[in-house]
Order: sequence, then C-alpha cells, then structure tokens
Amino acid sequence: MKEFKDLCHEARSVRRFEDSPVAPEIVNEIITLACEAPSGLNKQPWLYCIVSDHDLKNVIRTACEKVETEFYNKINQKRKEAFQKMNITIKKPFLTEAPYLIIVFGDNTAPYYVESVWLSVGWFMLAAKDKGLSTLTYTPENMECLNKLLNIDDNFIPQVILPLGYGEKKGKKVRKPFDEISKIF
Amino acid sequence: MKEFKDLCHEARSVRRFEDSPVAPEIVNEIITLACEAPSGLNKQPWLYCIVSDHDLKNVIRTACEKVETEFYNKINQKRKEAFQKMNITIKKPFLTEAPYLIIVFGDNTAPYYVESVWLSVGWFMLAAKDKGLSTLTYTPENMECLNKLLNIDDNFIPQVILPLGYGEKKGKKVRKPFDEISKIF
Repeated sequence: MKEFKDLCHEARSVRRFEDSPVAPEIVNEIITLACEAPSGLNKQPWLYCIVSDHDLKNVIRTACEKVETEFYNKINQKRKEAFQKMNITIKKPFLTEAPYLIIVFGDNTAPYYVESVWLSVGWFMLAAKDKGLSTLTYTPENMECLNKLLNIDDNFIPQVILPLGYGEKKGKKVRKPFDEISKIF
Repeated sequence: MKEFKDLCHEARSVRRFEDSPVAPEIVNEIITLACEAPSGLNKQPWLYCIVSDHDLKNVIRTACEKVETEFYNKINQKRKEAFQKMNITIKKPFLTEAPYLIIVFGDNTAPYYVESVWLSVGWFMLAAKDKGLSTLTYTPENMECLNKLLNIDDNFIPQVILPLGYGEKKGKKVRKPFDEISKIF
C-alpha cells in the first residue's frame, strides 16, 4: 500500500502506454472513487464514458488528430515551440495504445459543473495511480464531435479524454518553489 | 495510514470546524502535495493564499456574507429551497471558525487554468483528509473583492475559498448509482 504523498509524487501525465490489459472491474472502481468527490449542490454533474472498443478508439483518434491539425495551423510560433519542448505533436498514439479512453462530460445544467468535474478528475488520477495505472488529461481544443460519436445529449459538455493504462514517465517533476505558489497572511 | 479508498469515502464537504489549532507545517505540506498536480503546459497556474489572521478572516467573512445577501435576493424559490434542504444560509460561520482559509486563485494567462486549479483542489481535499483535516469548496457568486483584500494581481482570478481545520460530517454520502454516471463502449 502506498502512502498518499507517494501517489501525488508519482501521478504524472503519461503519453505512452504498455500493451498490458486492465481488468474492467479496476476501471469501474477508479471511476466509483472519482465520483465520491463533492460537487456543486451535490449534483454529481459528471458522466464517465468508458471506451475500450478498438474501432471506436480509432475513430476518436482520427477525429482528435483532425482537430489538432486545425489547431496547429492557427497557433503562433511561440506556442508551437512550447509544444515542441514538451514533445507534443499532432499525433496522438496514446488514443489507440491505451487499453481504455475515459471520456468525461459535464452536465451544463448543474451549477459549477466544470469545477466539479475537474475536482473529480483530480481524484480519478490519484485513484488510477493507487491501482498502479497512469493517465493524462488530454483536452483537444474542440471536443464537440464526442457527443455525436458517443450519442451523448448536448447538455453534457466534453471536458477531457483520459487514456488509462499501465505506463510511466521517468525523470524529475519540475515544480515551482513554495513561495511562488503561495502567500501567507 | 489510511487506504486511498477510505480517503475518498471520508473526504466530504464540512461546514463546522473545531477550535483545535493546526500546525502551519501541515498546511504547507497539504498545499505542496496539491501543487504536484499536473496542469496545462505545466504552467502550475495556481496561487494558494493561506489566511490565519483573525481580523482578516473576519473581513473576508463580512465581504462574503454581503455577496451572499445580494445573491439570495435574486435567486428563484426553487434554488432557495435547494439551499434550505442542504442547510445552507447566508451566514458563513466557517469563514471565521476554521483555523485557516485557503484562498485559491488561477492565473488567467495560462491555458486551461480553471481546469488545472480545480484538479489541484481535488488533490488538496484528499491531502487534507490524509492529515485528518476537512475542508469545503466554498464559492460565493462574486469573489472579485478577494484580489483587493489580499492585494493579488488582477490576472489571478479567485476560484474558491477552502476553510481548513478539524471537523467531520456524519451520515451517509448520497451517490448516484454507477450506471447513471457511466456508459460503457
């Protein structure tokens, strides 16, 4: 069993996943824990879609890479360089390599639905790490196509795609010093 | 040491806090862990303000209750009843009772700063629970006054006030069933 602080140290954005399968029960357990998070007026305004179907992952990858291409064509040089520095390109192999894509929607009829969903996504990441799994908060600029592809009502707004599987990122986390991210009163 | 799943079960929104003091080192440790969360382009666009000064907490409470009064005067009956059902009123005693108010700002020059900050707030809640502490995501409708009160630059947008201290909420968490918050593909 890992200490909580080690989960925080080890949970990182991972873009390469191993081939190894993940039991569906583990995925359900992670999502169940993520959905124990508090939310505005306890509306629990999240919908976690669990995609493991190979063909559907392929369709999602194609759609996202199309969005990425359009996005890259319009951003400025500085932004492109920032992506390059992080080894981020328009190719998103993790969308087909990860055994699961967890696609999270937020119900826009609930107050603070964006905030609530992302708090829950924070719990999801740590719950995944507690099971030895990794993920990534992947947010293509435009995710509207996901409603059509998954047949989800329009009041549910796509928030993030979370590829989920076994994978690691080596190296040290670069963190701002404490006095840069806090102020004491 | 608690299992991760127990942290998720036990972390709940708490509105009553005990008088017991909390060591500043513990608060710093919780914030440090929250700031290990991933963020858009690793910009770490958060600022955690730590308020323990009694007079300042009083000023913040007065300002927030003024905002609440204005808010309650304009919401509809249905919303008022929803608040009543949750025992939420315009009085916010936790803003002076909790030994700390952690006020989190997001840097609006960073991409996905709202999403990043709230993911980090999710980690904060669990890190607090891991130390036996409780919190609440308190979001008055208008938080602009916090920039002036704490002398924080305007590009930092107040996201949430997190009272922090010892406190518990009894009773069972009410959660939607798994098939209502998930879909399998």
